[in-house]
Amino acid sequence: MQMQSSCSLPRPKSPPMARSSIIPSSLSDGLVFTAGAFLALLIFLGLYSFLSPTPIPNRLFSFSPSFSSTSSHIDDTYDPPDETFYDDPTLTYTIDKSISNWDEKRRHWLKLHPSFSGGRERILMVSGSQPYPCRSYHGDHLLLRSFKNKADYCRLHGIELFYNTALLNPSMNFFWAKIPVIRAAMLAHPEADWIWWVDSDAIFTDMEFSLPLDRYRAHNLVLHGWPELVYKKKSWCSLNAGVFLIRNCQWSFDFMDEWASMGPQSPDYEKWGKLQTSTFKDKMFPNSDDQSGLVYLILTGKGGWRDKIYLENEYYFQGYFAEIVSRLEDITERYIEEEQKGPAVLRRRHAEGVFLSYAKERNAELGKQKGADTGPTGWRRPFVTHYTGCQPCSGDRNKVYSADNCTLGMYKALNFADDQVLRIYGFRHASSVSADVQPLPFDYPRSEE
Amino acid sequence: MQMQSSCSLPRPKSPPMARSSIIPSSLSDGLVFTAGAFLALLIFLGLYSFLSPTPIPNRLFSFSPSFSSTSSHIDDTYDPPDETFYDDPTLTYTIDKSISNWDEKRRHWLKLHPSFSGGRERILMVSGSQPYPCRSYHGDHLLLRSFKNKADYCRLHGIELFYNTALLNPSMNFFWAKIPVIRAAMLAHPEADWIWWVDSDAIFTDMEFSLPLDRYRAHNLVLHGWPELVYKKKSWCSLNAGVFLIRNCQWSFDFMDEWASMGPQSPDYEKWGKLQTSTFKDKMFPNSDDQSGLVYLILTGKGGWRDKIYLENEYYFQGYFAEIVSRLEDITERYIEEEQKGPAVLRRRHAEGVFLSYAKERNAELGKQKGADTGPTGWRRPFVTHYTGCQPCSGDRNKVYSADNCTLGMYKALNFADDQVLRIYGFRHASSVSADVQPLPFDYPRSEE
Repeated sequence: MQMQSSCSLPRPKSPPMARSSIIPSSLSDGLVFTAGAFLALLIFLGLYSFLSPTPIPNRLFSFSPSFSSTSSHIDDTYDPPDETFYDDPTLTYTIDKSISNWDEKRRHWLKLHPSFSGGRERILMVSGSQPYPCRSYHGDHLLLRSFKNKADYCRLHGIELFYNTALLNPSMNFFWAKIPVIRAAMLAHPEADWIWWVDSDAIFTDMEFSLPLDRYRAHNLVLHGWPELVYKKKSWCSLNAGVFLIRNCQWSFDFMDEWASMGPQSPDYEKWGKLQTSTFKDKMFPNSDDQSGLVYLILTGKGGWRDKIYLENEYYFQGYFAEIVSRLEDITERYIEEEQKGPAVLRRRHAEGVFLSYAKERNAELGKQKGADTGPTGWRRPFVTHYTGCQPCSGDRNKVYSADNCTLGMYKALNFADDQVLRIYGFRHASSVSADVQPLPFDYPRSEE
Repeated sequence: MQMQSSCSLPRPKSPPMARSSIIPSSLSDGLVFTAGAFLALLIFLGLYSFLSPTPIPNRLFSFSPSFSSTSSHIDDTYDPPDETFYDDPTLTYTIDKSISNWDEKRRHWLKLHPSFSGGRERILMVSGSQPYPCRSYHGDHLLLRSFKNKADYCRLHGIELFYNTALLNPSMNFFWAKIPVIRAAMLAHPEADWIWWVDSDAIFTDMEFSLPLDRYRAHNLVLHGWPELVYKKKSWCSLNAGVFLIRNCQWSFDFMDEWASMGPQSPDYEKWGKLQTSTFKDKMFPNSDDQSGLVYLILTGKGGWRDKIYLENEYYFQGYFAEIVSRLEDITERYIEEEQKGPAVLRRRHAEGVFLSYAKERNAELGKQKGADTGPTGWRRPFVTHYTGCQPCSGDRNKVYSADNCTLGMYKALNFADDQVLRIYGFRHASSVSADVQPLPFDYPRSEE
């Protein structure tokens, strides 16, 4: 369920360490002081790494997994009889009725189920698609492959995945449909610290990358976007609402209530359509949409939500496909070169169960390589490649993209990702768009030199 | 990837506790003695349960989960540098080269990775479909829903799922394609005790049922079938090769080598076609197929494999859809009735994470109900409903089935299963074939009386 149009606004040039908070620049001197201190820290760390014989384990410079998926020992076969929020007849899974005291309710449930607490933060990934066949020929097949792609990522990272094919609120369709699903998922998964919504047309193209959750400690909602485009350009494309992390807490329930109040089921739907259209000159269709609604809340500060919203742009938390797809083959070649000359550990065969051990090795190697950045000029694998505007299911793509760009592009990204998984099973695709696969020789790719 | 034809042979009438071993009746007196002892045991247990005030926790009479999915604490972020089979250049993932000493290789790997051992037996589910879009309109959408169905089952039971869309050996297509995939999966998952192959057209219709793995302790391959049909009818339909459990061990590698030697890539392919056709008078097409090949090995005892093959028919390890689909609505109604009059625990809302706790409660309740058997006359949910012969992807179904039987039938089974999952999220389908969903009231279904 995606928007009709895509965001083709050129990305702003941000310095590598630009803060991605969304607090506008007109704040107090406190911010100026903080900026100064931050710059001093940068200089210090730069000098320190030059002078010190020991590399700084610095997660700001390389996105090593700060989150391990080691499963803790859960007990799923016992539910104590003690009352919890589930036993409250006034609590509903539907979006028409607000939830209150969720943090306390969750805490109480976790106290009764101690095996679900502790260890690393738990993420539930949620995605989905429509409950009937796609109109376009490749549509459902691409959805299937994309679902597999998410399932592969989740299996490698020990993350649970809920793929939904039901329209929970018949009036909240298209891009609005995810909100009732996320809400229901939060109630069904009180053990989840985060819900990670990922659109059906967003593909994981770096299987080895883990979310740097520490960065988001002080926030409740993480999206890909640029503050500059929010405040200066006032663009509806300043962020993307198709991929986000939302914390499982009361703030999020309240936020979703406000967000959903802009939706088609709301009496204020038309009013929001007009307000969004008048605020965002580049908005391409008149009806209220979820993305414009989000930008509006951040831009205006209405409701105070923005303080807890993190706009990430230092890696492809989600990446616009048009700036990625033509580079995938080069990225593949570059990784092959690095593996051929790099340490044997990069080529070592291993069980899928210890995948993250090798992800850690690779990320450490990448951290030493010049140009191994994520972004339009770097050669690091993009984390997520999002085919926003392609509409693979309906076929109603934005006409600035050819069918090839979209369809072939999606197959390319899926194969690019699949190769990272198939490798564990001893195979790879014969080419970037081929369905055929070939066995990998021992010590691949050194054996190919 | 399914067979062209379906098996429409009427199932034999087996007594409820018939042994499903496949050893023919012409063996020694030892078997007679064993049968007598078994009967004595049955009588004893029957009397004991009558006289004893405490119910016997008897897994022979009710399929309570003997397998809990409680995850053990694995460490996926460290792979020791010690050599394992992965470092052996002579070991390949492809089917053309045999594996030897696998049990020792696996044991060695597990010793180096102690966190992957212990606890319950680990299962890896493997399924898959073709790498290009389906010909038929509903095809890919049904595959997507079926994949979701498997992903739901696995998530509820803590089982990993690998969904494959690559043809690993270009000559081994259709039903042969699974063998190279299973083999590669065994190597990629040395921690898995079992690989559970499930065809793409097989749907899990009882989310609460867990495999009774204790039954298969002495066997390496489990399929649904009837010894009577193997030995007396000599039918190619005496078992179904679309759903099976295969132990991750040397026996299985050797077995798959022999099984695969009947495939299209083998120089003996034609010979096997003729041999199978002359042996099984009801075989409907002349080429060698995986299912007839299996029956042949059991019937003749060739290679000695049959001693380790278990033919399960006491529950729908896989169930032929044509004897199930028309009963699904009645089964739904019966479960609703039982929940309305049964204990509150059957209706209690809960987290998805403790699903198995409620599965245990339900299975205990079902154990007390008359007629709650699995089978064509019982009203227990069928474990797996297999649309064999429907060919949803190509559309080339067996003409004894109408498009409605197949397509609509699959949607019915998918909805039937989906309702068991959606319930956890507070919803259900509006009807057995409807894509629409409705919210569930508190204390459903008692609130509907």
